[in-house]
Amino acid sequence: MQQGFNKKKIINDPVYGFVSIPSELIYDLIEHRYFQRLRRIRQLGLSNMVYPGAQHTRFQHVIGAMSLTVQAVDILRSKGIAINAEECDAVCASVLLHDMGHGPFSHTLEEVIIKGVHHEDISLAFMQRLNDELQGRLGMAIDIFRNTYHKKFLHQLVSSQVDMDRLDYLRRDSFYTGVQEGVIGHDRIIHMMNVVDDEIVIEEKGIYAIEKFLIARRLMYWQVYLHKTVIAAEELLVRILQRAKFLAGNGIELFASPAFRHFLYHTPGKADFFSNPQHLDLYSELDDSDIFGALKVWCSHTDAVLSALCKQLRDRNLPKISIQHAPYDADEVEQLKISVAQRMNISVADAAYFVFSDRVMNTAYSPEGFNINILYRNGQVQDIAEASDQYNISALAKPVTKYFLCCPKNN
Amino acid sequence: MQQGFNKKKIINDPVYGFVSIPSELIYDLIEHRYFQRLRRIRQLGLSNMVYPGAQHTRFQHVIGAMSLTVQAVDILRSKGIAINAEECDAVCASVLLHDMGHGPFSHTLEEVIIKGVHHEDISLAFMQRLNDELQGRLGMAIDIFRNTYHKKFLHQLVSSQVDMDRLDYLRRDSFYTGVQEGVIGHDRIIHMMNVVDDEIVIEEKGIYAIEKFLIARRLMYWQVYLHKTVIAAEELLVRILQRAKFLAGNGIELFASPAFRHFLYHTPGKADFFSNPQHLDLYSELDDSDIFGALKVWCSHTDAVLSALCKQLRDRNLPKISIQHAPYDADEVEQLKISVAQRMNISVADAAYFVFSDRVMNTAYSPEGFNINILYRNGQVQDIAEASDQYNISALAKPVTKYFLCCPKNN
Amino acid sequence: MQQGFNKKKIINDPVYGFVSIPSELIYDLIEHRYFQRLRRIRQLGLSNMVYPGAQHTRFQHVIGAMSLTVQAVDILRSKGIAINAEECDAVCASVLLHDMGHGPFSHTLEEVIIKGVHHEDISLAFMQRLNDELQGRLGMAIDIFRNTYHKKFLHQLVSSQVDMDRLDYLRRDSFYTGVQEGVIGHDRIIHMMNVVDDEIVIEEKGIYAIEKFLIARRLMYWQVYLHKTVIAAEELLVRILQRAKFLAGNGIELFASPAFRHFLYHTPGKADFFSNPQHLDLYSELDDSDIFGALKVWCSHTDAVLSALCKQLRDRNLPKISIQHAPYDADEVEQLKISVAQRMNISVADAAYFVFSDRVMNTAYSPEGFNINILYRNGQVQDIAEASDQYNISALAKPVTKYFLCCPKNN
Amino acid sequence: MQQGFNKKKIINDPVYGFVSIPSELIYDLIEHRYFQRLRRIRQLGLSNMVYPGAQHTRFQHVIGAMSLTVQAVDILRSKGIAINAEECDAVCASVLLHDMGHGPFSHTLEEVIIKGVHHEDISLAFMQRLNDELQGRLGMAIDIFRNTYHKKFLHQLVSSQVDMDRLDYLRRDSFYTGVQEGVIGHDRIIHMMNVVDDEIVIEEKGIYAIEKFLIARRLMYWQVYLHKTVIAAEELLVRILQRAKFLAGNGIELFASPAFRHFLYHTPGKADFFSNPQHLDLYSELDDSDIFGALKVWCSHTDAVLSALCKQLRDRNLPKISIQHAPYDADEVEQLKISVAQRMNISVADAAYFVFSDRVMNTAYSPEGFNINILYRNGQVQDIAEASDQYNISALAKPVTKYFLCCPKNN
Repeated sequence: MQQGFNKKKIINDPVYGFVSIPSELIYDLIEHRYFQRLRRIRQLGLSNMVYPGAQHTRFQHVIGAMSLTVQAVDILRSKGIAINAEECDAVCASVLLHDMGHGPFSHTLEEVIIKGVHHEDISLAFMQRLNDELQGRLGMAIDIFRNTYHKKFLHQLVSSQVDMDRLDYLRRDSFYTGVQEGVIGHDRIIHMMNVVDDEIVIEEKGIYAIEKFLIARRLMYWQVYLHKTVIAAEELLVRILQRAKFLAGNGIELFASPAFRHFLYHTPGKADFFSNPQHLDLYSELDDSDIFGALKVWCSHTDAVLSALCKQLRDRNLPKISIQHAPYDADEVEQLKISVAQRMNISVADAAYFVFSDRVMNTAYSPEGFNINILYRNGQVQDIAEASDQYNISALAKPVTKYFLCCPKNN
Repeated sequence: MQQGFNKKKIINDPVYGFVSIPSELIYDLIEHRYFQRLRRIRQLGLSNMVYPGAQHTRFQHVIGAMSLTVQAVDILRSKGIAINAEECDAVCASVLLHDMGHGPFSHTLEEVIIKGVHHEDISLAFMQRLNDELQGRLGMAIDIFRNTYHKKFLHQLVSSQVDMDRLDYLRRDSFYTGVQEGVIGHDRIIHMMNVVDDEIVIEEKGIYAIEKFLIARRLMYWQVYLHKTVIAAEELLVRILQRAKFLAGNGIELFASPAFRHFLYHTPGKADFFSNPQHLDLYSELDDSDIFGALKVWCSHTDAVLSALCKQLRDRNLPKISIQHAPYDADEVEQLKISVAQRMNISVADAAYFVFSDRVMNTAYSPEGFNINILYRNGQVQDIAEASDQYNISALAKPVTKYFLCCPKNN
Repeated sequence: MQQGFNKKKIINDPVYGFVSIPSELIYDLIEHRYFQRLRRIRQLGLSNMVYPGAQHTRFQHVIGAMSLTVQAVDILRSKGIAINAEECDAVCASVLLHDMGHGPFSHTLEEVIIKGVHHEDISLAFMQRLNDELQGRLGMAIDIFRNTYHKKFLHQLVSSQVDMDRLDYLRRDSFYTGVQEGVIGHDRIIHMMNVVDDEIVIEEKGIYAIEKFLIARRLMYWQVYLHKTVIAAEELLVRILQRAKFLAGNGIELFASPAFRHFLYHTPGKADFFSNPQHLDLYSELDDSDIFGALKVWCSHTDAVLSALCKQLRDRNLPKISIQHAPYDADEVEQLKISVAQRMNISVADAAYFVFSDRVMNTAYSPEGFNINILYRNGQVQDIAEASDQYNISALAKPVTKYFLCCPKNN
Repeated sequence: MQQGFNKKKIINDPVYGFVSIPSELIYDLIEHRYFQRLRRIRQLGLSNMVYPGAQHTRFQHVIGAMSLTVQAVDILRSKGIAINAEECDAVCASVLLHDMGHGPFSHTLEEVIIKGVHHEDISLAFMQRLNDELQGRLGMAIDIFRNTYHKKFLHQLVSSQVDMDRLDYLRRDSFYTGVQEGVIGHDRIIHMMNVVDDEIVIEEKGIYAIEKFLIARRLMYWQVYLHKTVIAAEELLVRILQRAKFLAGNGIELFASPAFRHFLYHTPGKADFFSNPQHLDLYSELDDSDIFGALKVWCSHTDAVLSALCKQLRDRNLPKISIQHAPYDADEVEQLKISVAQRMNISVADAAYFVFSDRVMNTAYSPEGFNINILYRNGQVQDIAEASDQYNISALAKPVTKYFLCCPKNN
């Protein structure tokens, strides 16, 4: 009788077609409730306010990144790079779990919900818990994640300037937003990968694909991730949470799920967060529905500031935002607050929830730490910033800063 | 100076590229809070349990269907069919609003949350409220929706065997699930539309595209909408809601947002629903996050049945499901319940939440009411079931029924 | 130092992305001049007269089919089917070479240029020549092609109802024509393949994909391959060649490349074709440019019939064609010839080059020989015609015949 | 009875879906034999040697560019820019005909087949002939093409830094080669077009799309159009033609179609070409099949140089090519010629057909003449080179030159 019937688990992915689960370990990780939580966390937070198609989840993203890792391992092996089965499994697991620490609306709320705790540390904490449950089967994956494994190039697949994470998210975010400017030749880049001196290099033929990747990444930043309407929505959400925590700090009752309530009424520091397992337990229950579910109820809260902010976000009646290359004049911002305070009949201090200015920054290529190395036919290796024949890739290393100013629409 | 700068509002859609908002009326409808709610309701409910990409929302779908309507109007006009600007606006509005009555996990929960109230009636109620707010600007749109407008073919664009709704959802669901079997030539079908005797017909050249459309629709039903794992998830959700309402009916406290709580603790009949505006007010606040937000909290409810069911769905530890063409033997199902009751230490009555059997049905082509008419070059018009040269399209009109049986996985 | 740098040859394919050349044998075959000829033969002959995008070549198609074969072998191996490296190479080579015998505008001209010699026999002849050159390295590939190899299922990958040839051409032709109706889930079908009793079967989950494949194939026939304007163009080309051979037979001088001239002035029978190596030598030089290059020159030939026909094709001033399900009345056709003869001032016999009627036929599913077997979870195997729950797949086995009548446009 | 049935002519295009023929004038132009010739000329010449998918024709390209023009006119009109029906028709005709002067392998052979005659002048000559045939209906189109029409911005749609030609060819070449790096947001660019002071400008929101367009264009140059293997193939073809003309000049007989023979045995200067209508008559008969049809026959020519070169191209046994940023040392090249001459037993002069060095150059953005202007929300207009916030778009204006050296493979 035929063997293996229906043993091979595959996942339908609109971006790559079918994705195969490469091993039982990976299968067990995906089935775990910590991992399933990622099904309920959108990859791009509030970007769907501008790009309605951007509903994809972190679950889809890490499955995709894992499938690119399998492909990269295959290509490297075909070029004679030794990667054994256990290492392949470990690097796949590492890619799969690297984003597990993300909470709902992660980049936006990281500093509001749990101050001073970085999502990568939370990922590591989850990995260690899973490793205990799995009797140490994740040891090598954790080593690769922490870059303590002796084959350093494996860590670079997980985290570097051209890691599987970036290759997948550019491709996927571009697919779901409909912004064609972000389409990259991930296939070509992976086919051009090689290893020299324990570091990932890109063969000469892939140089244009890398340039395109760097440009595409920059364009996606300004056109999607830092699109001004997206910033307005995210900053609004930050202020909602800040107000809610302020109210909670004053003992005022707020509707929230138990897990979310915990983080509204407590602010564990980093040390506390990792020493008391209850924090991580509750954190593992949070997803987008906790935040939006509460926010909708807060629309009828008696606190006028909170309810006004929440309605703005629920009904997509977002703040007016303007952007410029220089900071906004502090006096001007202050005047604006005063006029809003008067019109809304609130204090000038509270007006700061409606009128605010800050900055956003992006660097397309940050060669410190890891750079992108090009391997020439003659064996020579050179940084892309020098290898590129035309323009100043190095210019991409210069951070771009923009300043924004938000105020209510009808102002 | 240049005119119209940035007046033309466009929406990025990964399926069609750019979608233009055709008029101010349509713009105002989209901005309304009732409409914005559709951003938070997934088009395919729990299908993402099988197809992780299926995260798209009803918002995206109706915007897409509206854009196909604009295209259809253009094509029909180019063939000499008179459609004035007001009619164009009205049919677009009608398509845009036809799905407004959907609640969260609509097809699944319709009969559980508000018994006996059909989502199309709720759509109409919303439309009438909006019409009041907009001083009657929606009058013609409502007439078209109710098929009381004298140009009947406009209603067929909103609702018929090949309406804009179906053309969009097949294309879109296929895009987001990654199931290529559902890709249809919506472009060709729309280009082949014409009007004869006040009815939409498809010109002869479009006959294969129509056949393909009927087949694709059938395949999408069995491969996506009625995929057995999707059925298992949806039936599980139904039982969770039934249990919650049972507990609510017994005065037991359940975590829920106020809007959701209202429908857990009350069951308005159809007449009551439409006469007391409070019901629709609260209904307009419901979305996916109310359901899943509560369900996650119920995982630690003291009622063992409720918490067990909720954990199954949250962690995607879905019931084992089998499918067959004949009903399952009632005795066998009963035996299964008894054994589950014993193993879980619950009553046989409660075991019915874990062991259950029912049927699903689909008809690919239901010609009663509206059929699909083919227009030949010689002016003759014929139903597709007769026009198709090879097989029995009429066979597609025969409903297919399948029976399923669910029980806990480790049984 | 790194190994294998740039050894792995890849081909850019717009349909599948990158295609890897799996082995040195395959690489050598592709580099051979017999194979390179396929770069100059369009896959769809004159279909570009209707679908301007249909310019793809047989080279692209067989490379694509070969890459699907590699994928199928991988899937089958993962299910425990034993296929060793040599067998993998052989079945790939077999798929790669199975179309090598095609000449320019093959399906159209097969019976005109070399009467009675089937293109598959010519493929075999080429394979045997190559096998000699390659010191027998193609022995197993030839056995698989001829179905004399003991693992019969390998031959089915090369030639059967769902072989790699069909999976590729439907996908590819659909891509290049822009006819979305032909898009199939080739990926799903290949993932669902298995082997039972030395025969390829499709696992139960793939049943809808197979139905869709059969329907898509039928639609592509009527919408592309047998599109009436394509038939008009192809039948016109047949008549051009018939007239040219008639003139050649009468010793009249015709411009042509030496290879084409050989087949205009000689008509080797099957036995002669294979016994005298000169025929195959010259055949191996023929491609689309020989035919069209000559045809363009014949536009100014002194023979009025030949030049008129050639101008029609060159300038896409194609015959008027009508289609019906019954044969055309012979008297009517005769009358038409007489009237055309008078108007063009030619004999009624010559008018048959301008006025002609014939039939085309297609069967979507021909289970004789090979059928498509579905493998159920319980191990049972059943023909798709019985397995499909709804309609009459068996109806697809009934050939559809259509009759056409062509005459000059201005008639 | 229904009107307009089947009057609207549409063309299936795999890149954009359906393209509608906007008017009778455009329909008549497309049907003309001069235009139909473009069906037989590949857009990318010999690029298919590297990218087998690159088989698309100039016919497809200009139809595509025309359809983008219709879209651009629609967008501009919606912003209040006055373009009447006649102007719309004229600018479409102008785009459609602007490439008509291209011969087979145009960029490669322009300077070999007809020295000193630019393809744009030939396009104009064709347009004037057509204008005579059409009783002056092309007058305005010709004015727009020559930039003598008073609305200068219409000419910019035909020819400028972001004209419809470029938008289509980047998108299309990228589609057919499978090089995703060339995908551009043509849709976004067109939606962002506006007119200020009779010049096309791009609204601020389109700035990233324009940057991406410039980068994509550069990448396509180096990755496709000037890919080193493509250069090797094209330079080989140039040498084949040079040798053939040399032999023809010495009275040696060469197989060729009459039209091709004319240009082998005569070399009309620019003045002669346009004054004697026979040249344009014969030129209008040339297409890819003339060149390749002859070249294949020349493989058995008695001239050893010619036959060796032709076999290399036919069998894709291309010269070895190396690329560098500085010129190759003349002595080194000379030495190489001598050694090849000895090995092939030919003169050193003839060895120059096999060993040769030259340079290729590309400028991604050439602002002289036309530049790309960005329109800000405040009405200000600025060149993209200054408007772009990060890098040196101006660096893209610096031409990049590369030097290549070819010699036979087995050297």
